[in-house]
Amino acid sequence: MRLKIDCELGYELKAPTLFVLGVEVAQLASHIGVRESLVIAPDLPRRTYVSPETGNRLTSVLAPPGPLLVRYEAAVELQVVREHPARVPEVPIAELPLEFIEHLLPSRYSPSDRLAAFALREFDALAPGHQRVTAICNWIYDNIDYRRGASDPETSALDTLVGRAGVCRDFAHLGVAFCRALGIPARFVSCYALGLEPGDFHAVFEAWLGGRWWLFDATRQAALDGLVRIGVGRDAADVSFATFYGDAEPTGMAIGVIAEDGAPAERTVEAIRVE
Amino acid sequence: MRLKIDCELGYELKAPTLFVLGVEVAQLASHIGVRESLVIAPDLPRRTYVSPETGNRLTSVLAPPGPLLVRYEAAVELQVVREHPARVPEVPIAELPLEFIEHLLPSRYSPSDRLAAFALREFDALAPGHQRVTAICNWIYDNIDYRRGASDPETSALDTLVGRAGVCRDFAHLGVAFCRALGIPARFVSCYALGLEPGDFHAVFEAWLGGRWWLFDATRQAALDGLVRIGVGRDAADVSFATFYGDAEPTGMAIGVIAEDGAPAERTVEAIRVE
Amino acid sequence: MRLKIDCELGYELKAPTLFVLGVEVAQLASHIGVRESLVIAPDLPRRTYVSPETGNRLTSVLAPPGPLLVRYEAAVELQVVREHPARVPEVPIAELPLEFIEHLLPSRYSPSDRLAAFALREFDALAPGHQRVTAICNWIYDNIDYRRGASDPETSALDTLVGRAGVCRDFAHLGVAFCRALGIPARFVSCYALGLEPGDFHAVFEAWLGGRWWLFDATRQAALDGLVRIGVGRDAADVSFATFYGDAEPTGMAIGVIAEDGAPAERTVEAIRVE
Amino acid sequence: MRLKIDCELGYELKAPTLFVLGVEVAQLASHIGVRESLVIAPDLPRRTYVSPETGNRLTSVLAPPGPLLVRYEAAVELQVVREHPARVPEVPIAELPLEFIEHLLPSRYSPSDRLAAFALREFDALAPGHQRVTAICNWIYDNIDYRRGASDPETSALDTLVGRAGVCRDFAHLGVAFCRALGIPARFVSCYALGLEPGDFHAVFEAWLGGRWWLFDATRQAALDGLVRIGVGRDAADVSFATFYGDAEPTGMAIGVIAEDGAPAERTVEAIRVE
Repeated sequence: MRLKIDCELGYELKAPTLFVLGVEVAQLASHIGVRESLVIAPDLPRRTYVSPETGNRLTSVLAPPGPLLVRYEAAVELQVVREHPARVPEVPIAELPLEFIEHLLPSRYSPSDRLAAFALREFDALAPGHQRVTAICNWIYDNIDYRRGASDPETSALDTLVGRAGVCRDFAHLGVAFCRALGIPARFVSCYALGLEPGDFHAVFEAWLGGRWWLFDATRQAALDGLVRIGVGRDAADVSFATFYGDAEPTGMAIGVIAEDGAPAERTVEAIRVE
Repeated sequence: MRLKIDCELGYELKAPTLFVLGVEVAQLASHIGVRESLVIAPDLPRRTYVSPETGNRLTSVLAPPGPLLVRYEAAVELQVVREHPARVPEVPIAELPLEFIEHLLPSRYSPSDRLAAFALREFDALAPGHQRVTAICNWIYDNIDYRRGASDPETSALDTLVGRAGVCRDFAHLGVAFCRALGIPARFVSCYALGLEPGDFHAVFEAWLGGRWWLFDATRQAALDGLVRIGVGRDAADVSFATFYGDAEPTGMAIGVIAEDGAPAERTVEAIRVE
Repeated sequence: MRLKIDCELGYELKAPTLFVLGVEVAQLASHIGVRESLVIAPDLPRRTYVSPETGNRLTSVLAPPGPLLVRYEAAVELQVVREHPARVPEVPIAELPLEFIEHLLPSRYSPSDRLAAFALREFDALAPGHQRVTAICNWIYDNIDYRRGASDPETSALDTLVGRAGVCRDFAHLGVAFCRALGIPARFVSCYALGLEPGDFHAVFEAWLGGRWWLFDATRQAALDGLVRIGVGRDAADVSFATFYGDAEPTGMAIGVIAEDGAPAERTVEAIRVE
Repeated sequence: MRLKIDCELGYELKAPTLFVLGVEVAQLASHIGVRESLVIAPDLPRRTYVSPETGNRLTSVLAPPGPLLVRYEAAVELQVVREHPARVPEVPIAELPLEFIEHLLPSRYSPSDRLAAFALREFDALAPGHQRVTAICNWIYDNIDYRRGASDPETSALDTLVGRAGVCRDFAHLGVAFCRALGIPARFVSCYALGLEPGDFHAVFEAWLGGRWWLFDATRQAALDGLVRIGVGRDAADVSFATFYGDAEPTGMAIGVIAEDGAPAERTVEAIRVE
């Protein structure tokens, strides 16, 4: 599926400010034939970085006071891998490659240690594998209200569980925390998503099953095979779309994702991953 | 029912310490013919206080370094009021006497504001009245493990809900928080309890229904008609059995409650209150 | 000093809502010749309550959807008691009347137990009495920025200490917490204040010294002898100016306090209390 | 300096447990001629991992119920790099390589965002560079008590700041948080330390200055040129010496570090780093 992404961000700066942008699509084999442009106004010297481990990309500018406008456009052929969920088993914790242990560790927004008792009581007895993570997503969907404004930058999965409301970021944090508590490596994914209404950045998560990272979205807001990854990290702290050091006020944001062939997003029951 | 209470507390003091004891049975009409003795060794000048609003009692001593031993014995005829639960309705919030508003306010260990979304999703649709508070207790009993050591003095109802384990104090805090979030005034009760194994102080809660305070115990550890109240408060912060200002280490505690006629505690389905 | 208070509050209600208003001046001997009117539009049946212990007053209405307007006007002759600070000693904790023990207990917004180590390191070595509480106020003034928007309804004294910014309510919570941690009973005071710019409700605190409650204001925003008390409580949870059960959005607030003789507020170094 | 490390850990397992050990010295150029042995009893199949980015090492075993004993011995020639502190400047945030941005991000135990106001008020005006981080360490040393038992696995830098007591791990978390809040990349270091009494694992931190990671220890418990690194991470969550998935109780721990030439540890005022 060929997707076209359009992302505009506006800021008003009160002081010289270092902007670190995380809006460019990740360098992945699944992202084929990427054509993109990143316009920053005013035009400023840039620094860029691509993480060799994850393909996450960063671009930074040191911007003077005044308005700052960012426009990122990209077209990408997205080639996901599909599998029957029953063929995606859990990896016994003793067989996990040790470099994945870090994806079992609690993190700030996904404090899996504090949610362990909860996760074990709700999900430990379920049949393992892709279906268990789907059951986790279903539980989140059924028990947490999707509501704008329900959370703020300090909201953790624990707060979301108690407050029973959140946005995509909070749903992903909760999914990540539950997985880790059950011994399933999990990580946070920021992305563009086909079919999101209104257009916005999206957040989902990946669980490591059968030796691969598989995508999950407890919000049911977008199709798993229409997600264009921006970045992965332990939780949202790692993959902010804009981090600034200085003094900046957001003045506007508009994000659009369309399929070039006009195909709508459809929810799939297949297991989906990118590579 | 005539109950005999025996309570021993031991401390080792490293410095002169003000002890404030909250171990004496409350002054209540339901506590008939109280005979009691409070021995403190060493024998020290005491100050005492009985709250005119609640009947809660306090005794304090300023103790020198060294061992401090407290022994409280009491015999009391406990006369509870019984009612059929169906005759104990909720009071619409607009009809609550305004002096009860304070029992709807969040408190430190029962932050009902933060648990409001949770309470509304789980309990708002239930039939109101005594049966709804019983449903809350059943939910707590089914979802929270009773486990010694699961909590510490900073544990709030929110922590208990997430950690899914606690002791009587935590169960009571959670019951209080859920009730307040639903508009039902609720308060914390510390007490002696017939049938507790091993012997210990107990904590339950009261909800204000039909114009009276009714007892509830989500732990199912003791019979509601075998509880001898020590004190009531907003939460455990108000009714500690021993508060000290100085330096004291507990060295032992033994609490026993027996029915003088040897009758065992039995769980009742009646609505129970004291007055 | 004769003060004239004018307080207007506006709300838009989306559903039938129980309003509990805490805006009327407290019933105190120091409040002489109170003339007041409380207009609520629409005009609705009211319930009122005056706490016999504190003189705090509440008025409630059950309001239908639509706009709700509250206008409270009062004129009061304020007669404070003045004393030289050196004549206001601390009461040794062992000599505190036991009914004041509750004012040493940690509460939700003033968790004095968690701030005990901090309070002891900063203030334990200071000379006791009124001057020590003044030193606490000076420390707060010097170390915490007064900044609107720095806090929200969940902000505790601990958050304020770490975030180093807050409003009057936060300054009062921190003062209360430090006092309690040092063994000085303290409570929260909501009030109208002469000289506040812009006009607003104000919050200060009282410490129990020399057998009386004395006023302190770490914000230095208003004169201690120009405060007209609305209510006292353990912390802000107890003395909200408006609590609602239903669905209400604030649409406006305007508060004015003037001295009828036009005298400006002046900061005093005397110890001040009301009775 | 040639150091000899001896580390013994004992556990009692109640169930089959996956142990992940982080006790081996890191693979660093500064660690010369490492000779080591890691004995695990019972003898079990092992998996090992060395992080290509950090040189952190992990070893895991799946252990059956019963006692588990770990003994790690190592001898290493430690070759630190020394520099005059005045020659170690801060890197302006706009000139930081983007891969270091992650070391500015708040993490669970070092929530630099929540401590930013505090850090700015205390340290922003100080002269920048190595000396500023030393000033941070001095402030921590002067204001936080080193006290065993003052913290638990959930204690964050914020808790330590308020509680004003902690152990090496807490001191390091606070140093890391303050640095990040000031725009100085910082990370957590777990290590063996010459001169620690009693023997234990140690924790310090590194700040990125002048294009290198420099060591800092706010506890003053050990000499910076006598630290043998085990691992680095964002905070303690990343570099636990033992993580287990199963059911294990620690039964004992003994750690010794000696200089083979018997030289004592001496505090240095030089800037110290490893590579």
